[in-house]
Amino acid sequence: MTEATYLELKVVVLAGGVGGSKMVNGLAQILPPENLFIIANTADDFEHLGLAISPDLDTIMYTLAGANNPETGWGRTGETWQVMDELRRLKGPAWFNLGDKDLAASLLRTHWLRQGQPLSRVTAQLCRRFGVAQTLMPMTDQAVRTIVETDEGQLSFQEYFVRRRCEPEVQRLIYEGAGSAEPNPAASAAIQAADLIVIAPSNPLLSIDPILALPGLARAIRGAAAPKIGVSPIIGETAVKGPAAKVMRELGLEVSPVGVASYLKAVLTGFVFDTVDQAHQGRLADQGLATLCTNTLMRSAADQARLARELAEFSLRLAKK
Amino acid sequence: MTEATYLELKVVVLAGGVGGSKMVNGLAQILPPENLFIIANTADDFEHLGLAISPDLDTIMYTLAGANNPETGWGRTGETWQVMDELRRLKGPAWFNLGDKDLAASLLRTHWLRQGQPLSRVTAQLCRRFGVAQTLMPMTDQAVRTIVETDEGQLSFQEYFVRRRCEPEVQRLIYEGAGSAEPNPAASAAIQAADLIVIAPSNPLLSIDPILALPGLARAIRGAAAPKIGVSPIIGETAVKGPAAKVMRELGLEVSPVGVASYLKAVLTGFVFDTVDQAHQGRLADQGLATLCTNTLMRSAADQARLARELAEFSLRLAKK
Repeated sequence: MTEATYLELKVVVLAGGVGGSKMVNGLAQILPPENLFIIANTADDFEHLGLAISPDLDTIMYTLAGANNPETGWGRTGETWQVMDELRRLKGPAWFNLGDKDLAASLLRTHWLRQGQPLSRVTAQLCRRFGVAQTLMPMTDQAVRTIVETDEGQLSFQEYFVRRRCEPEVQRLIYEGAGSAEPNPAASAAIQAADLIVIAPSNPLLSIDPILALPGLARAIRGAAAPKIGVSPIIGETAVKGPAAKVMRELGLEVSPVGVASYLKAVLTGFVFDTVDQAHQGRLADQGLATLCTNTLMRSAADQARLARELAEFSLRLAKK
Repeated sequence: MTEATYLELKVVVLAGGVGGSKMVNGLAQILPPENLFIIANTADDFEHLGLAISPDLDTIMYTLAGANNPETGWGRTGETWQVMDELRRLKGPAWFNLGDKDLAASLLRTHWLRQGQPLSRVTAQLCRRFGVAQTLMPMTDQAVRTIVETDEGQLSFQEYFVRRRCEPEVQRLIYEGAGSAEPNPAASAAIQAADLIVIAPSNPLLSIDPILALPGLARAIRGAAAPKIGVSPIIGETAVKGPAAKVMRELGLEVSPVGVASYLKAVLTGFVFDTVDQAHQGRLADQGLATLCTNTLMRSAADQARLARELAEFSLRLAKK
């Protein structure tokens, strides 16, 4: 397998925030930018202090621009906090951290949205300003909002995730508006033209599920000819970052690569999981999935690129069958 | 005349931005806070980057809080510019300067407005957070917007004032929404209960006119028993600050205290003007106005307090007649 082979692949990635952005960044290191298409979850988006906040789009954009803060997993590197400090002094709502640089991007997004531009165009413009050459797309231009039903009642996603730090027990997830939302047409087109569809190691419930909850996108993915390869966000019995393991457990799913693969199997043909979970290989194969067992932990940019390369080569093998 | 006398006056001030805030600050120095009521122009308000911006309310609030920047006449002292710097780097709309501290107040206002709270309540809450004990009120909770018809076409007030630096020639001023806007009920009540109504040395056209364009407020002021005293923003043939002289000239008004008094005479019983304009005393008296000729330039807080004291004493003399 030579590099020249996978360089020609048109790759679509379905992604949420942190885990998604690492996988995306790996693929960005090995592919020409015009061949990488990212469809991001927007069900975590919300309006805060009058601003349109898109956490997953921003995390991926900042990562591709090399402007992300790798320590927090969200927000900008070299960030300052003048506005938040003053908002706190005024006893305003300061539970959602928005750095000054981060705020500037949200102000610009809000400005364009209020002018009537769709989120997909706004995202493309922001990417251009950030020097991001890959195609980053919201899953839809319409509002889809995750509602978390918990033992403390219904919470918006950010209330659950940031304000309540994922502490309440999840009983049900609702992706409000997903059933009737039109997919972003460019996202559907990218899926149809793809040589490889990657389901990034993002939270299968809170990040991937909202994308698949758009009937048009789920249909496009199921109908696509390309290999569809998921990467497990669960290594051993825990998630690398975030509440994936806790939420899976609370919703009665097995917290393992098998649990992830079973949940997503309607849209998978292949699955990548970690060597620490090698014992599960048989159960994954039983689900009719081609598998790649490798080191999936992405600690560095080099890890990201290596995993992306293995994933791309795995997909070429699948496509040949 | 003893201090004890004017300490009991309930004073209402109609005010715009810079000139208004200086007069308000003078009165704040000599009156107990519960006796000072400010009705601010909101026709300069606008939405920018998704935020609700209220320049005159903020200038007065910052001034009363001792948090204003006296050099610029707008914004906060000790301000930082992290967000604007980043917005500029992203080639976003950076023509309207919003410092980080200033932004925090606008974010909080926008947050409360989006919750459905009226601007009057939002303003009261902001004042409380800033430790302002006087009663600062928007003229109305509804949207009134100044449109400037110029030789370059129609401009919103901020486009004319900030973006185009008052350079286009003004042909007509329109206070969109003023004719049908309900006055803030607390403003009407304050006017009715007032012992003195002051028309601050703000731009008579762009700052005072929009307040008087609310039929309910103009009626309340005309019907009020209290002395109604204007302070000339024109000293000699120029405005202390801002485009008042230029706009008056372009609209065919005499640029002098007489021009100001004539324009406002339906709501005036007395008028304060500067000693450099002493020659105009006769023409002002001819309009049936009681006059006070004194040093009206407010360079320092002491100047503001002295002018406020003279104004209060002048009103007591008028009330006795």
